[in-house]
Amino acid sequence: MFDILKRMILEQQIKAGERIDCKAIANKYNTSVMPVRNALQQLTVQGLVVTKQRVGYYVRKFSEKDLIEINDTRAMYEVYCLNKYFSRIDKTNIRNLYNHFADTEYDDLSKMIPLDQELHKTMVTISENSFLIKQYEDMNCLFSLGNYTGNAYAEVAKKEHMDILHYILEESKEKAVEALVYHLNRVEEEIKFFHLNSADSK
Amino acid sequence: MFDILKRMILEQQIKAGERIDCKAIANKYNTSVMPVRNALQQLTVQGLVVTKQRVGYYVRKFSEKDLIEINDTRAMYEVYCLNKYFSRIDKTNIRNLYNHFADTEYDDLSKMIPLDQELHKTMVTISENSFLIKQYEDMNCLFSLGNYTGNAYAEVAKKEHMDILHYILEESKEKAVEALVYHLNRVEEEIKFFHLNSADSK
Repeated sequence: MFDILKRMILEQQIKAGERIDCKAIANKYNTSVMPVRNALQQLTVQGLVVTKQRVGYYVRKFSEKDLIEINDTRAMYEVYCLNKYFSRIDKTNIRNLYNHFADTEYDDLSKMIPLDQELHKTMVTISENSFLIKQYEDMNCLFSLGNYTGNAYAEVAKKEHMDILHYILEESKEKAVEALVYHLNRVEEEIKFFHLNSADSK
Repeated sequence: MFDILKRMILEQQIKAGERIDCKAIANKYNTSVMPVRNALQQLTVQGLVVTKQRVGYYVRKFSEKDLIEINDTRAMYEVYCLNKYFSRIDKTNIRNLYNHFADTEYDDLSKMIPLDQELHKTMVTISENSFLIKQYEDMNCLFSLGNYTGNAYAEVAKKEHMDILHYILEESKEKAVEALVYHLNRVEEEIKFFHLNSADSK
C-alpha cells in the first residue's frame, strides 16, 4: 500500500495540496481503511503527506523556501560524493550517458528527465554507501514532486549536464565539481524565478 | 506516542534487538494498541524500528557496516556545511563551547557527550536550512543509538574537538575542515576497532 500510494503521489494522480480519500482508495484496492492509514502515516514521516488533525491527509505542497532548501540538500549529497569518490566513477557508464545526452533533443522531456535523474544519481551511487543513497532517494522524490518549472530551461540544463560529464571524462575533478555546483546554483535561480512568476498562493 | 516511543528507544529503555511489547506500552499509557502501532510504523520509516511480518516490532540493531555508513553520512553533512557556511558561524558561541570543553574532564561523559553533540550540530545549524537540519537530526539519532564504544577514546576525542574549535576561532576554514575530517575518520577507525573486539553476532 505504501508503494502504491507513493507512486500515486509522485505521478501526480493526486495533486499537491489535494485531500487523500482513504475510503475511496481502500475500496479501489479491495482492502480496509487501516492499511491505507498506516501507509499515509509512513508517507507523513517521509514528508510527502501532511496530516490535519481530525480532518484528514493531504498531499504536501512545496513553497519556494522548501524547494530551495531541498535543492541545497541535494547539492550537499552530490558535491560531497563527487569530491570524495571521484576516482570510483565508471568511465564507460559516463561516456554512454554523455552520448545519450548528445543524441537527445533538449525539449524531449520524456527522454531528458530520466537522463537528468540518472546523471544526478550517479554522483551519489559512487559512494557505495547504501544508507546515504537511500536518504538521497527519499529526498530526491520530494524534489521531483515539487519541481514543476517545466522545460523553460531544458536547453540550458542539457548543456550544463554535458559539461559535468565532459569534465568527468577529462578527469578534471575540480572542474567537474565546479560545473555541478554551477548547475545546481542555476537551478536555485530557476526555482526563484518560477515562483516570482506564478501565483505562489495558488 | 511517537515522541514517547522514540525517547524510550534512544534512552535504551528498550535495548537494540529487543522486541517491543505494544500491549504493555498501550496499558502503561492508558491507550489502545492502535496509536502505539501507528507510532511504530513511523519509527520504522525513520529506521529506529524494524518489523518482522506477523511477529512484531523490534528495536533496530546496527552492524559495523551500518555505523560506518551513518558516520560517513554525518561527515557529509558537517563537512559540506562547515565549508559552505563557515562565515556564518557565531564566534561567541564557539568561544563558549571551547571554554566548556576546556573546563570539562574528558572522562565525565555525562557532560562531555552533550558538548560533543552540540559541537557537531553547530556545523549543520549554520546552514539555516531547516530541511537539511531535520534530516541530519533524524540521522544523528540513529548514530547515537548505535554508537556504544563508551569512553575508551574520550581523551583523544576531547583534544580533536578542541582542535576544530581552535581553528574556527583562528578563522582558518581549511584547517577547521581538515580537523573535522580527521576526527570523523578516526571515529570510523574506532567503530571498526570496537566491532573487531566485540562479539559482533551478539
